[in-house]
Formats: sequence, C-alpha cells, structure tokens
Amino acid sequence: MAITLALLEAMDRADPLALFRDEFTLPEGIVYLDGNSLGPLPRSTPGRVAEVLERDWGEGLIRSWTDAGWLGFPERLGDKIASLLGAAAGTVVAADSTSVNLFKLLAVALHLRPGRQVILAESGDFPTDSYIAEGLVALLGQPHALRLATPGGIVPAIGPDVAVVMLTHVNYRTGAMHDMAAITAAAHAQGALVLWDLAHSAGAVPVGLAAADADLAVGCGYKFLNGGPGAPAFLYVAPRWQQQARFPLTGWLGHADPFGFHPAYQPAAGITRAIVGTPSIIAMTALEAGVDIALRAPMAAVREKSLRQAGLLMALVAQECPDAGLECVTPTEAAARGSQVAFRHRDAQAIMQALIARGVIGDYRAPDIIRFGITPLYLRHADLWHAVAILRTVL
Amino acid sequence: MAITLALLEAMDRADPLALFRDEFTLPEGIVYLDGNSLGPLPRSTPGRVAEVLERDWGEGLIRSWTDAGWLGFPERLGDKIASLLGAAAGTVVAADSTSVNLFKLLAVALHLRPGRQVILAESGDFPTDSYIAEGLVALLGQPHALRLATPGGIVPAIGPDVAVVMLTHVNYRTGAMHDMAAITAAAHAQGALVLWDLAHSAGAVPVGLAAADADLAVGCGYKFLNGGPGAPAFLYVAPRWQQQARFPLTGWLGHADPFGFHPAYQPAAGITRAIVGTPSIIAMTALEAGVDIALRAPMAAVREKSLRQAGLLMALVAQECPDAGLECVTPTEAAARGSQVAFRHRDAQAIMQALIARGVIGDYRAPDIIRFGITPLYLRHADLWHAVAILRTVL
Repeated sequence: MAITLALLEAMDRADPLALFRDEFTLPEGIVYLDGNSLGPLPRSTPGRVAEVLERDWGEGLIRSWTDAGWLGFPERLGDKIASLLGAAAGTVVAADSTSVNLFKLLAVALHLRPGRQVILAESGDFPTDSYIAEGLVALLGQPHALRLATPGGIVPAIGPDVAVVMLTHVNYRTGAMHDMAAITAAAHAQGALVLWDLAHSAGAVPVGLAAADADLAVGCGYKFLNGGPGAPAFLYVAPRWQQQARFPLTGWLGHADPFGFHPAYQPAAGITRAIVGTPSIIAMTALEAGVDIALRAPMAAVREKSLRQAGLLMALVAQECPDAGLECVTPTEAAARGSQVAFRHRDAQAIMQALIARGVIGDYRAPDIIRFGITPLYLRHADLWHAVAILRTVL
Repeated sequence: MAITLALLEAMDRADPLALFRDEFTLPEGIVYLDGNSLGPLPRSTPGRVAEVLERDWGEGLIRSWTDAGWLGFPERLGDKIASLLGAAAGTVVAADSTSVNLFKLLAVALHLRPGRQVILAESGDFPTDSYIAEGLVALLGQPHALRLATPGGIVPAIGPDVAVVMLTHVNYRTGAMHDMAAITAAAHAQGALVLWDLAHSAGAVPVGLAAADADLAVGCGYKFLNGGPGAPAFLYVAPRWQQQARFPLTGWLGHADPFGFHPAYQPAAGITRAIVGTPSIIAMTALEAGVDIALRAPMAAVREKSLRQAGLLMALVAQECPDAGLECVTPTEAAARGSQVAFRHRDAQAIMQALIARGVIGDYRAPDIIRFGITPLYLRHADLWHAVAILRTVL
C-alpha cells in the first residue's frame, strides 16, 4: 500500500505525542531533521535563562551558590538525566563536554583494570572518541595503546590486555545501535569494562544502563536532550565503581570539602568526584529546560513513534525516489537502530546543500552520507512527506 | 588627615570610570565587595543571551555554527581576552574551566621539558591548582611529582628537575601579587617554564603576558571579567610554544579538520588545538558581554582606581576600627598587590556572616580571612565608607 500525505496526516491526528511540538520554537517553512546534531529551542528556555540571569545572578549574586542551589546543580540535573537512561539517582552528573568526560572515564577505567593497557574502540565511531583515547595513550606512553576493531568486530577483539571497550551506542553515521547488554556481558566475561558513548541515545532510545550492567557512560546535552549549542555533557559511573574511581581531573568541586580549601585533594563520595571546575549555571539551566521536557514524554511512546517515523521515511524514499541511487545504510531491524535514517550517495554533500537551501535540514557526513534525525517530540509524520517531496525534486 | 564621607563622595564625582557602574545591575542596598568571586550581571547580558537563544539558536538552528559564527567563537573571544592581558591575537582561547585548562597546560609543559618531571607550585595558592597537579602526577606515575614551595620561596626552589612552575599571579587569600617578569626570568634561567594562573588578575590588573615573556597561563571568566556563574575560562600559550604544544585532551574541535571526520587526530595549527569539545555558545555569549565592558575601560585608569580604593579601605579600617583585632594581610606596597584587601581575624567567619546579613558582601576564606574585592568598574568610593561603618557596627 502506498504511503500518502493523507495517511501521514491521519497519523499526526492520532499521535499521543503531538502536543509536545508546541514546547519548541521551530521556524516557519522548515522541516528539521537535524535534532541529532542540535536540538531546537524549547519555548521555556529563554524565560528560565532570563530568570537565572536577572534574579539568581543579578539580584542574588554570590549568595545564589547556596540560596539558589547552584551548588549541587550538576548532581541534581544528573539525577534527572539518569532517570532518562534507566540509571539510579547518584550515578550521573552533568559536566564539561563529552570529550572531556571521555578522557576522565577512560583514565578511570585504566586505573580500575591494572595490568591491562589497551583501550579497544571501533573504527567508524565519532572521531572525538578515538581522538581522546589517542591523547590519553600518548600522555601515558607505552605500553598503553588504542586498538581499533572493525565495525561489528568488537567482541572477538576483546583480548586479555583490554582494560576498557569504548563504544558508541548508536553510530553517528549509520544510526546502527549496539546491543548494550550483550556487548557489556561479553566484555565482562573477558575482564574488561565498557564505556558507552550515549551521544545519539540519550533522550532518543531506551538506554537501560542499570539493566545492561553498564560500567561507565558519557553523553551529549545538545542533541536529543535539546539543551542548546554546546550544552554541558554528562557522565555515568555504576555504583559498584564509584568509590574506587580515581579521576584524573581532580578539580576543587570534586573535592570532599571544596570550601575547606585543604592543601591535599580528597575525592568527594559518590559521583560528585567526577566534577572538576565550576559549571556554567546558565548553560546548565538551558540544558535542564530541555531535559524537563524529555522527562514528561514516556520513552516507550517516543521509541514507538521514532521507529514508525524512521520506517516511514525509509519506505517513502523507496517509494518516491526508487532509482535515485540512494542506499539506506541504517539497519531495517528495529532493535538494531537508533533514531535516525542515513543514506549513502555519491553526491551526498551536494544533495544535502540543496535540501538545506529548500528548508529540509539534515546533515552531511563525509564522504558520502546524508542523515536525517528522527525526533518524535516535534517531528510530524506529514513533515516526512514534505521532506521526501523536496528530496525527489533535488535528486 | 581623616577620611570623610564628603571626601569619598568628591572622589566619586571626579571619577573618570564612574559611568561604568551603569553598565551593571546591582541590587539596591548592597555594597558588593565580592566581584573577585562572582562579578555582577552586566545590563547588556540578558539581551545578548536572549538574542542568541531566540535568533541564532531558535531560528538559525544548526546553520548558526557557520552563519552566526559559533565556530571560531573560542578564538575570537580569546583574542579579546588576550588584549586585556597584554598578549597577541592568536594566543588565547576561551574554553572549559580553569581547572581543566590547568590540567591541559601542565601536561603541555611536561611534554615541552623532557627529562624534567617536577611541577613546582606554592603552598597557599588556590587549592584547585595543586589538586589538578596532584591528579596529573598520579595519572602519570613516578618519577613525576608535585613539589610545594613555601609562600615567597618559589625562586630558590626551582631546581634542575623542575619542568614547570605553576603560580597564581594574585593570591586568592591575601591579594599579594607576584612579579611576573622577574619570576618568569628566574624560571627560564633554570630551564623551567612558568604557568600563570590569572584568576584574580584578568580584568583587574595590568598583566602584560608578552612583556613578561610568559610561557603559559590560565584564567577565570566569572570574576573580574563578569562573565557569569561558572563562565568559560581561558588559556594562553606563547607563540613560541604553540606548534610544539601537545595537548592531552585531544577533542574533535582541536583537530586540524574537525568536519573531515578523519580517523586519526591531527592538531589544528596555533591556539585552536587547545580547544577540546563543543563550547557552550550561551555561556560564551555571556562571557563576551562582560569582556566587552572591560575592553572599553582603560586598564591604567582601572588600576589607578583599584589601588586608590584599596588604599582607602585599608586606611578607613585603621581609622574606624583601630582596636578590633583586624590584621591586614594584603601588602601595602602597590606593586605587590592585586585588587582586593584581606584581613585576618579569629572570628573571620562570624564577621563575614554578619556583614553579608547587613548587605556588605565580601568573602570568608577558611580559617581566618575576610576579603574584599575592589572592582573599579562599579565600586564607588562612598561605598567604602558605608561598608566600613557597617564593619565597625559588626565588630
């Protein structure tokens, strides 16, 4: 049966998440399929940021560190993010950037696995992950090493010298999603830890860190969490590792008694030791506004709509652009994909430039990928029709 | 001659910087002497932040990385900060926190000085500096070590094993200021580099990084630069070290071609390699609003007013509270102090609590210090009179 605009509009009328679209500011005439790169502005964000600026900073001044609860904000916001990730309170903090957090947790993992010096990653993951590992390995010197497995070949590569497997849960190019529980179990069977990069998972798919017995994770605030450009990132440490975790970046706000100004570093209990310097309260406020929306959307409904919309996009492209040379590189099996659809095409860059010029905003990823983020909180089914109609014109 | 309120009010009328006070939002009934902990809200900040939220993020979405110049913001804002520090364009980036930047530059310094494994610091500096050095040394293992010199004893402690001297330019407790050029020269004579922490210097005193032949520096955006709570920090690398600098945190935005998504890390030319992950554009916008005010205030006038106000505060306390047991720990010699006045008192904590309750906001620093930041952009001479009158009541 052909997909029609009328069918898609009927799906929008029946969509239990439809009202969430009103929570975001979206420019007229745009189909935004890039929420996996930068989520849109929540309507509540400007007001909340203005309140923090004018009341908490402007009026409260230094007193707001205690009176407005700025101290403890990384942990409080972390608890909210934890609940999106199937993780317990006290296991997540919002802090720094994803890259900085990767560095911290790779160092933590190496320390937790003495006698093992290899970081194992998968080629084709987002480059900053392996860049950060390269930098840490160069800092520590031999015999520390970064080893790259071929895509899909991570499990057989987990040898007895591997301290930590670093893996992106959902691939940034293809949208393929790993089986977190299975790979974690395989790594544990070899005595290795796993550090999951949730950049394309948090707020997009059910994650289930605790259920998967995950050790460590990092993720991004500005994609599906809609926290704004360069929003603070987050990190997760399983309760069983927290008291042994030795962080390499030992800043004063991770100290057990930061305002005691003690001469020697003493890590705070729990996840607080993962904090380094003073967090941007303004940036954290914007992130919290985005996270608060995600908290109100049932993840099961989000996932169901995401899978349906991604499936519709794949089918529509096949229906409308059958001979255009677009090869879908996103797995068709629901359990094996995140919340985006990506195609390979030899003219990928030119196609995406033309789409953006016509108001269909996705991403080009070198050398030959165009990708479309599926964001059920504000993407309408009918938007897919308009996007594919323009894609057909462009092709 | 006694200091009188009339004299102080006359100074305010003659103050060439008086109009800068209108650039800030300051609550009624408060004398704010804590701008060295958290600077106040510039009047321009809420509007500039709102514009970035609603226009650049809300309307521009992902396109603003290029169209609104978000890429390159750390370097552009860095250039503005550089001009406040007597440093050339292309030597400073705004990025991360002071603590994270300390870690980066300590690692850079150790790599630039092979065969030397000691970080030399001064006890009594702000603890995060030595905490970060402790963490780096623990990560690298022996023979790397952190050695602490006694206050004032740094130069004789620079032995042939010292790779880098890490020193706070202006002490956070006493306000004492080091002679940057002299200490840098002494370190260079011993083959060591110097990493200056400018947390209490940037925007407060003339720094002259280039004239002092400084190697490396970090500093803070939320004190005298008025960038907001947890504002991004900055770091400086002298041109002669930039191409050799090997940063330990090798994130994608420090890559020579971040959007090429190359498998291997290749550092960007120049100071850009000091960038790690995606910066918070919102936080950077607020910082820029503060920096832009500082850029319009002639540093010579700021320094002159700062020294005059600090001198008046010392004299007023001596005049009004002669037998109160307050011992001024800030050097009286102008060249030897930054932009704060600190006193030792056995009841320091109780005194500061009572002052804050009465609208005179300074800082308590354990165990026995009260400190008052002198911020010429918005502090009136007459404010000193009211502050000391309340201090006398409290005592």
